[in-house]
Amino acid sequence: MAALSSGVLGALDPTSDRAVFRQIADQVREAIDKGRFKEGAKLPSEAELVEHFGVSRMTVRNALSILQSEGLVSSEHGKGVFVRPRPPVRRLASDRFARRHRDQGKSAFTVEAEAAGSKPEVDSLEVREEKPAPDISARLGSPRKVLARRRRYLLDGRPVEFAVSYLPLDLARGTQIAEPNPGPGGIYARLEELGHRLDHFDEEVRARMPSPAEVKMLRLSSGVPVISLIRTAYDTEGRAVEVCDTVMAADAYVLAYQLPAN
Amino acid sequence: MAALSSGVLGALDPTSDRAVFRQIADQVREAIDKGRFKEGAKLPSEAELVEHFGVSRMTVRNALSILQSEGLVSSEHGKGVFVRPRPPVRRLASDRFARRHRDQGKSAFTVEAEAAGSKPEVDSLEVREEKPAPDISARLGSPRKVLARRRRYLLDGRPVEFAVSYLPLDLARGTQIAEPNPGPGGIYARLEELGHRLDHFDEEVRARMPSPAEVKMLRLSSGVPVISLIRTAYDTEGRAVEVCDTVMAADAYVLAYQLPAN
Repeated sequence: MAALSSGVLGALDPTSDRAVFRQIADQVREAIDKGRFKEGAKLPSEAELVEHFGVSRMTVRNALSILQSEGLVSSEHGKGVFVRPRPPVRRLASDRFARRHRDQGKSAFTVEAEAAGSKPEVDSLEVREEKPAPDISARLGSPRKVLARRRRYLLDGRPVEFAVSYLPLDLARGTQIAEPNPGPGGIYARLEELGHRLDHFDEEVRARMPSPAEVKMLRLSSGVPVISLIRTAYDTEGRAVEVCDTVMAADAYVLAYQLPAN
Repeated sequence: MAALSSGVLGALDPTSDRAVFRQIADQVREAIDKGRFKEGAKLPSEAELVEHFGVSRMTVRNALSILQSEGLVSSEHGKGVFVRPRPPVRRLASDRFARRHRDQGKSAFTVEAEAAGSKPEVDSLEVREEKPAPDISARLGSPRKVLARRRRYLLDGRPVEFAVSYLPLDLARGTQIAEPNPGPGGIYARLEELGHRLDHFDEEVRARMPSPAEVKMLRLSSGVPVISLIRTAYDTEGRAVEVCDTVMAADAYVLAYQLPAN
């Protein structure tokens, strides 16, 4: 293997207090960080690492499983272990909700996916009326019922985001917002036509490990956290007209914001 | 245990395909999500769960270790297993770099920590000149050398964030920015005094699992990801005058942004 013969990975330190499998993980991690193993590249095989370091196969596996739990590499059954690609989609918060985009009828997700060279798709759309959970209810001024729009976003066939929009039922019922296809410019365009001119959005960003349901829904590899983003849309009267609760695969996104300095 | 006798946890489903330890984890997770086990509360003991569900101690341990790896609970040796508190610090991006705060000389971290009722602290400050890594260099217009200011932030004695500010050396050398204490209002106030009036900041937010060095530095429990935030400060001439590379304990922060709708 070129990577081994060319000195990308060195020797172990026999005098170190650090366990051998951790030393191996450290070396591979450093090679990834420094770009010596590129994104998407295949790592040397277990057998090659066994030979290079002169250790047991179990030691090599322990080293690789550390890197996997850190989300740096992923194992593809029968093919080997690969360096994970970095997040491909740049989500431009400051620009994505600009009125001019709504006027053009293209969704922010579509624009961002195309910029990343990926094919965007939305599936498993569900629209229904329901009783809101306490935290959603509190953000919307305690409506008794809400319209919930659930959908999953995919890039090149891979699920990357699951989002639920909640709107007070008195705003949404009987409008195009309650239809599966809310029309060009999406629900924000419809809200504005209904007289709720949008003023600003609040976004709250958290990161955490996924629940089992989220692992399944987003087909997450081990060692990949999720970004939880809760956005609230306010109209010019100061009323919260929508809450969007989003869970994103953290390895698929960079969230970009621009803030004024004055 | 009141939580068990009062029906917070139910019975197992013997007809389910789902493994028993997963069923137990599901029940405890749901009880946490619904607030039946509150933040910071102690879960029923292993012995109590063993008796309640009629399973082996190993099964209970497997269930709890799932919840631990999801970051929902943490085990305190000899004391039991506790529901993790939710992120306490609300980081208000849109407001924290406002000029009026700089003028008052209070740091954003101090203001946010005090709002969360926590005692803020900064330690292990290091200021030095160095050759920048490629991605930092590219953001700053490829200076040959930079001034790097490294520091760690703590809340109530717990490390929550590690940040490194990089400034082109020609801007920073010989100024108060190169001193351990950059004076009231911090380095942004000094940059403005030097004629670099700030125009805007770009922030890039990612989430990932921590490296071993980050686990140590931030004393992270297992199942806690980090938020990586890279901020670039631009002056009114459009020059990037600082890059701040920050790693935050994800269980300690909510990042809040406000975006205009027009």
